[in-house]
Amino acid sequence: MKPERIDHICMVVKKLDEAVENYNRLLELEPEEFYVNEDEKLRVARYKIGEVYFEIMEDTTGDGDVARSIEKRGEGLFLISFKVPNTEEALEKAKRKGYRTIDEKPRPWRNSQYAFLHPSSTNGTLVEFIDGPD
Amino acid sequence: MKPERIDHICMVVKKLDEAVENYNRLLELEPEEFYVNEDEKLRVARYKIGEVYFEIMEDTTGDGDVARSIEKRGEGLFLISFKVPNTEEALEKAKRKGYRTIDEKPRPWRNSQYAFLHPSSTNGTLVEFIDGPD
Repeated sequence: MKPERIDHICMVVKKLDEAVENYNRLLELEPEEFYVNEDEKLRVARYKIGEVYFEIMEDTTGDGDVARSIEKRGEGLFLISFKVPNTEEALEKAKRKGYRTIDEKPRPWRNSQYAFLHPSSTNGTLVEFIDGPD
Repeated sequence: MKPERIDHICMVVKKLDEAVENYNRLLELEPEEFYVNEDEKLRVARYKIGEVYFEIMEDTTGDGDVARSIEKRGEGLFLISFKVPNTEEALEKAKRKGYRTIDEKPRPWRNSQYAFLHPSSTNGTLVEFIDGPD
C-alpha cells in the first residue's frame, strides 16, 4: 500500500538519557515527549522534526527486540514507519504479495494501529505500517 | 544547529535493482531517479515520500563505505540527513561543541552542500547535515 509519508524513524541506543542529551545538544531540540511501551519492553524519546517523528529508544529489560538488535548490529537506526491510510489493509495486501510479517494482526497504539513486516522480507530494515490521525 | 526537517534517509543493500523491485512492489511507488556518486562509490535509487527522500544504495566497487557497513552490520538503515539553513555553519558549530566529524569542510552536491558527522559521536548513526533549496 502506498504510504502518505514517513511517520517515524527509530534509532536504538544502550543508554537513552545520555543519547538524548547528545542529540539535544547537537540538534538544539528537545523531545516532545518520553513514553514507555511495556509490551515491547522499551522507553522512547520522541522528537518532531518537520513532518516526521524521530524516536530514540532503549530496552527496559535487556531481553527485548531492541537489546537483541544492539547485540547483533550495535547502536544505530533500526526502523522506518510508513503512514498508510489503513494498517489492516496494508498488512493484508503485503501478506498476499508474499511479504513475511511479524504481526498477524495490527496492534493498537493511541488512536492508531500499526504492524511490522519482517526484516528478512525488506532488506534488513524493520518496516512498519501505521495509520490514524495526524 | 536546529534542523528544519529530515532531508533524506538511506538504506544500504547488496543488490540495488532487486531491492528497488522489492520496495516498489511493497510501497506501490517508483524512485524519482537513479544516480551514481563516483566519489563515494555508490549507486542510489531516490524515492520521495511526503517531504522526505528515501534512498536505497549499493556500493559500486565493493570497497567503499557502504560495502564496509554491510560487512559489519548487514543490510539496513544507514544514514539520517538533517536539512539545515547552512551546512558550513552547522559543521563548525558541531566541531566547536566537540562532535567528531568525518568532513573537515562541506562537500558540494547539486545546489547544496553536505557534511558528515562521525557515527562514534552520534550513537552509531551516520548523521549528515545538508542545506540548499528544496
